[in-house]
Amino acid sequence: MSESAVALEAYATIGILGGGQLGRMLALAAARLGFKCHIFSPNPDSPAFDVAHRVTCADYSDTQALDRFAADVDVVTYEFENVPAETATFLAARVPVVPDPKILATTQDRLAEKKFVSALGIGVAPFADVAEPAGLAAAIERIGRPAVLKTRRFGYDGKGQAAIKAGSDLLAAWREVGAQACILEAFVPFEREVSVIAARGHDGAVECFDVTENEHRDHILKVSRVPAALSAEAANEARRIAETIARKFGYVGVLAVELFVLRDGGLLVNEIAPRVHNSGHWTLDGASVSQFEQHIRAVAGWPLQKPVRYGRVEMTNLIGHEVEDYRRYLAMPGAAVHLYGKAAVRPGRKMGHVTRVFTD
Amino acid sequence: MSESAVALEAYATIGILGGGQLGRMLALAAARLGFKCHIFSPNPDSPAFDVAHRVTCADYSDTQALDRFAADVDVVTYEFENVPAETATFLAARVPVVPDPKILATTQDRLAEKKFVSALGIGVAPFADVAEPAGLAAAIERIGRPAVLKTRRFGYDGKGQAAIKAGSDLLAAWREVGAQACILEAFVPFEREVSVIAARGHDGAVECFDVTENEHRDHILKVSRVPAALSAEAANEARRIAETIARKFGYVGVLAVELFVLRDGGLLVNEIAPRVHNSGHWTLDGASVSQFEQHIRAVAGWPLQKPVRYGRVEMTNLIGHEVEDYRRYLAMPGAAVHLYGKAAVRPGRKMGHVTRVFTD
Repeated sequence: MSESAVALEAYATIGILGGGQLGRMLALAAARLGFKCHIFSPNPDSPAFDVAHRVTCADYSDTQALDRFAADVDVVTYEFENVPAETATFLAARVPVVPDPKILATTQDRLAEKKFVSALGIGVAPFADVAEPAGLAAAIERIGRPAVLKTRRFGYDGKGQAAIKAGSDLLAAWREVGAQACILEAFVPFEREVSVIAARGHDGAVECFDVTENEHRDHILKVSRVPAALSAEAANEARRIAETIARKFGYVGVLAVELFVLRDGGLLVNEIAPRVHNSGHWTLDGASVSQFEQHIRAVAGWPLQKPVRYGRVEMTNLIGHEVEDYRRYLAMPGAAVHLYGKAAVRPGRKMGHVTRVFTD
Repeated sequence: MSESAVALEAYATIGILGGGQLGRMLALAAARLGFKCHIFSPNPDSPAFDVAHRVTCADYSDTQALDRFAADVDVVTYEFENVPAETATFLAARVPVVPDPKILATTQDRLAEKKFVSALGIGVAPFADVAEPAGLAAAIERIGRPAVLKTRRFGYDGKGQAAIKAGSDLLAAWREVGAQACILEAFVPFEREVSVIAARGHDGAVECFDVTENEHRDHILKVSRVPAALSAEAANEARRIAETIARKFGYVGVLAVELFVLRDGGLLVNEIAPRVHNSGHWTLDGASVSQFEQHIRAVAGWPLQKPVRYGRVEMTNLIGHEVEDYRRYLAMPGAAVHLYGKAAVRPGRKMGHVTRVFTD
């Protein structure tokens, strides 16, 4: 879809690949703007199915189902970056797919992503390509210990990662991440983790939300706080980095850039997520426009909004059995409770979140 | 459903009678809390159908469809008060219906409603029962002119009303409202119109939103502003009136009380709407909990939230062709745009609304 794409009508149909809570919240945001949504997901228990105009439950390789899906929608987007490239390419031949599937090739591969960011003159942790176990020792030689071995593809929430410390067995680490193509990253002694949610429209306009500070537990996001405890200078630099990445990609939609803040205030890009992001959930309650709505606006060819934040915001994920405590949050004054409608509680599963906005 | 009703699980199914924008926004709020919705509406173009887990398009008198609907849902509620009493009664024999359908008998009839409010010692405009045209002259004798003749049933947005001024022809007025049972109300020289959105939970707890000031155009709500320009005393009194009405009804859910503010600060109840209300749409963006979510919480047997308002709020309805101007609002910083997904634009039809929150 080019930048001159015609804007959709307010009752057009948006196709969404993926039916998890991100797809669900995208569909809810689309509905607020008058759009219908068609959700495509291989999982029959998809939370997004409950709020969609139409659903397709089929495998991402089912070309007949994809054909019917493409014929029913005016534009396609996705809730997560691990949609098979063939699926996105198949659809893009039939209907506009936003953001451009070509970007997935970069963001699905940690090595390509690091090279892309690095080439923009933006800081990243020192890294080395580890194509096979034999290359690991040489990489350690260059990067030093401690370091983190990460699979190039399909990692999330700490999956596909192994720490390499002073006495670590290299071959064991290689096996731990699944004996596949990896990169080795220097361990960065960061002071805090932050993220920037940026949106870029068809017209090239970029709007960033305020920098969010993120606290992880067992590699899963637990709490996000806005604004992050950063100098105005560092916060501006973080936003500038996200904006540069969005522009250089020719990106349309919402992307998240995760950054490490070093002791001296320096910033290193940790990861890019070419989609709405858990650390942006606070925007549903704490701002005049949410990350989900910005993404839908971009995908529809509508103008972005300049977000106005309503106060200091804190978002807490409800993970696994924590969700059973929801009544406590329901009764908490000013707490906005979001539950994803997942009947099965599993450890580590994101079941909902709670946002509190402090206007004092 | 008694006050000891067991709270629903977060993935239970809520049945909603009516598929307009109110049903749509109720369904969106229910989804945020993890519920599934089943919408029942006779209108195939129902905006709420687009965001529902399941839909039934059937007449309110179709007992087979109602039977299947009742079997599929855990609780039933409605988006508007003109659901046929027989429909509500039929369903209530099969599944909990909230709020209690008995309340509809009062609020569907302007005469019964006025008597109910009056009996609580709450002020209303002087009124007289006009069962037939012959009684109109006597009623005018008692109430005086100017006055307003209103049908007892099925009036909304100024429909079913005729002004009776100095020279008005009484029989013409009677015919204008459809020659049916009416009440005559004294014309009240009010200074402003306000409303209170109140929620009452199964546990008897009541939470009122801040008093809203409403501006009508051609008898249709055009702008709501919060807070209303009232003394703290009058605002408290307005909330107390709404709370008293909710308690005396034994009401569960959200109701709206429209009031006239007189020059001396006195308050008269104009109308009760036993449902979410257009003048409460600002709560979607301007408060930590919306009227739609409060209603769903009450219906589900969940605790209400004590709402926190994020600032001064202004909500503007997009009526008829005004919606075509939506791109102007989309680009307005801080403006939250809601479009109801109605493809057909008709004069006087509510197509969407825009909310602005001012945190200064």
